[in-house]
Amino acid sequence: MENQVTHAASNAGHAGVIETDAVIVGAGPVGLFQVFELGLLEIKAHIIDSLAYPGGQCIELYPDKPIYDIPAVPVCTGKELTDNLMKQIEPFGATFHLGQEVTTVEKQDDGRFFVATSKGTQFLTKTIFIAGGVGSFQPRTLKVEGLDKYEGSQVHYRVRNPAQFAGKNIIVIGGGDSALDWALNFCAGNEDGSANKAESVILVHRRDGFRAAPASVAKMKELCDNYEMQFIVGQVTDIDEGDEVLKGVKVTGGDGVTRVVPCDQVLVFFGLSPKLGPIAEWGLALERKQIVVDTEKFETSTPGIFAVGDVNTYPGKKKLILSGFHEAALAAFAAAPYIFPEKRIHLQYTTTSPKLHKVLGVETPVFD
Amino acid sequence: MENQVTHAASNAGHAGVIETDAVIVGAGPVGLFQVFELGLLEIKAHIIDSLAYPGGQCIELYPDKPIYDIPAVPVCTGKELTDNLMKQIEPFGATFHLGQEVTTVEKQDDGRFFVATSKGTQFLTKTIFIAGGVGSFQPRTLKVEGLDKYEGSQVHYRVRNPAQFAGKNIIVIGGGDSALDWALNFCAGNEDGSANKAESVILVHRRDGFRAAPASVAKMKELCDNYEMQFIVGQVTDIDEGDEVLKGVKVTGGDGVTRVVPCDQVLVFFGLSPKLGPIAEWGLALERKQIVVDTEKFETSTPGIFAVGDVNTYPGKKKLILSGFHEAALAAFAAAPYIFPEKRIHLQYTTTSPKLHKVLGVETPVFD
Repeated sequence: MENQVTHAASNAGHAGVIETDAVIVGAGPVGLFQVFELGLLEIKAHIIDSLAYPGGQCIELYPDKPIYDIPAVPVCTGKELTDNLMKQIEPFGATFHLGQEVTTVEKQDDGRFFVATSKGTQFLTKTIFIAGGVGSFQPRTLKVEGLDKYEGSQVHYRVRNPAQFAGKNIIVIGGGDSALDWALNFCAGNEDGSANKAESVILVHRRDGFRAAPASVAKMKELCDNYEMQFIVGQVTDIDEGDEVLKGVKVTGGDGVTRVVPCDQVLVFFGLSPKLGPIAEWGLALERKQIVVDTEKFETSTPGIFAVGDVNTYPGKKKLILSGFHEAALAAFAAAPYIFPEKRIHLQYTTTSPKLHKVLGVETPVFD
Repeated sequence: MENQVTHAASNAGHAGVIETDAVIVGAGPVGLFQVFELGLLEIKAHIIDSLAYPGGQCIELYPDKPIYDIPAVPVCTGKELTDNLMKQIEPFGATFHLGQEVTTVEKQDDGRFFVATSKGTQFLTKTIFIAGGVGSFQPRTLKVEGLDKYEGSQVHYRVRNPAQFAGKNIIVIGGGDSALDWALNFCAGNEDGSANKAESVILVHRRDGFRAAPASVAKMKELCDNYEMQFIVGQVTDIDEGDEVLKGVKVTGGDGVTRVVPCDQVLVFFGLSPKLGPIAEWGLALERKQIVVDTEKFETSTPGIFAVGDVNTYPGKKKLILSGFHEAALAAFAAAPYIFPEKRIHLQYTTTSPKLHKVLGVETPVFD
């Protein structure tokens, strides 16, 4: 979803730097609504997210779960909320830069900020809106001493290349859908029953109960009954090493006994956990890992950088999506003077303002 | 829409006083959403409005006009917004007291507030939420010296009793739907063509253009062509009096000439204009006719009285419905200690909390 601006800028010899009025960090519901509020003030925005799609937590954590507290929306799922916001911001043509994290933010002499992402996208922007939610989502790791040095070779938190597990003795750790799905997948191989089939699959979970689809759990139990898979109730408490190779893990069961379970590969699926990540290093005033803002402008300790939604804190703060919407509106008004220093910004209403109807691309009804 | 509580209280010998945790003044969108936010915290509310129906400005001023800036609702009318909010608050069984204004608010020795309305409804409440918007809607008056002393006898801003105009020579002033509708009505009489027909109808409007339904304008013109009605372009600049009776009005036309137009009754329809009304007399700190609140609790200068939506002011305030929603959420949390002094209130999410699912009357989905 890179955009024409990138190419235009690089053609103009600016070494690919996108010059813009506003960069929004985070494409969750509040980041998306920030596009809308900026758009009403005729401010175009670029929006960056570490996920590969817009929606943030709503899509990552509860795409199908009902939300009841969006005002005037008695019920919607995270996906519907995201879809509606995407539709609402359509008139404003924001440019999305997805699957990348902001790695650099540097104030320039001309008052602008230089922003760079993990994919090398670069911006020079007059304002920044941090709508990072509770942070970017990273897999929760298995905390066992000495395990980390095998990460990427024998220990994995994501399956990037299923073929590397074919014919191996694998241990899958976890009790959610990802753990069950991959355990079943490597037990069965591909649909034709051949490729990517592991030599053996052992599922390890701390209890005999699962947060996974009942059908997957039933299938797993059937495979265990047929000795095609093994399930061990217990927690990984240590590793078994030999000659710079992980030979197996030690699993402590509910009975208190620790057993060595040999394996070639370990797959851990403990779910995703949000991390504030590099934002913590931008030099902004923080309080308990949240960005301190005022309640007039929702501006951080660095003028020109605003923070809205779950990422910020102020007296009375509640982490509600509807609060983020309000914060985005006030932050947009507060940002306008950085972008249009000469212009006086008046509050106008979408119901009556012909000017707002123009930016929204709708017709002004003839009522008088 | 008075409720069982009233009767229950009066049967119990409390002289009809409703004892409650929360009274909301104003049934516009923010007042309605206040019901929701209180409801999530298991606080039941009584809601009072001067209009005969819920929706406030949205219904009074723009029931059919599109609104574009409700987050996650790309477009809706004032009526749809109200309907959706009414649906959203359904689980909380708020009691509506409509068509009445709050006339009295008095702090009691026990910390509660005594509240009384123009219809005589009385409450003893632990908290009050003022969601009065820009005020209650009052008809705009015709500003001509000496006219006010005939208000109610020969000058009217509302038609309370159509029969009193039967057989009279009437002047209808205004160019909107109310003016046209009543002019047509008194020209035609009732459906059977008899009762309530005026002797003569003269419509006066400042210009030859109308804010009324085109069909009404066409009908009016047809009646004028048939000499059944008269239309004068001009403004009422003076009155013609005699012996404590209004004999007519003086109309200055576009040509600068002032003519006396005799009449028995004058009906003025200049639309409604909001007035803060009695709220201004409650002793709350005001700033330019708005109620001063903090941004942590949205509490007024009187502890236990909160103000949300267009009626309040604080640094950065924008009169946006979405801001009122945020304010209502924070005010609800801030009010909880007045109602449940012993209880610690935790923020819970409608997506995941079985407790909130219970108060919402929905089933908790089985995911975990």
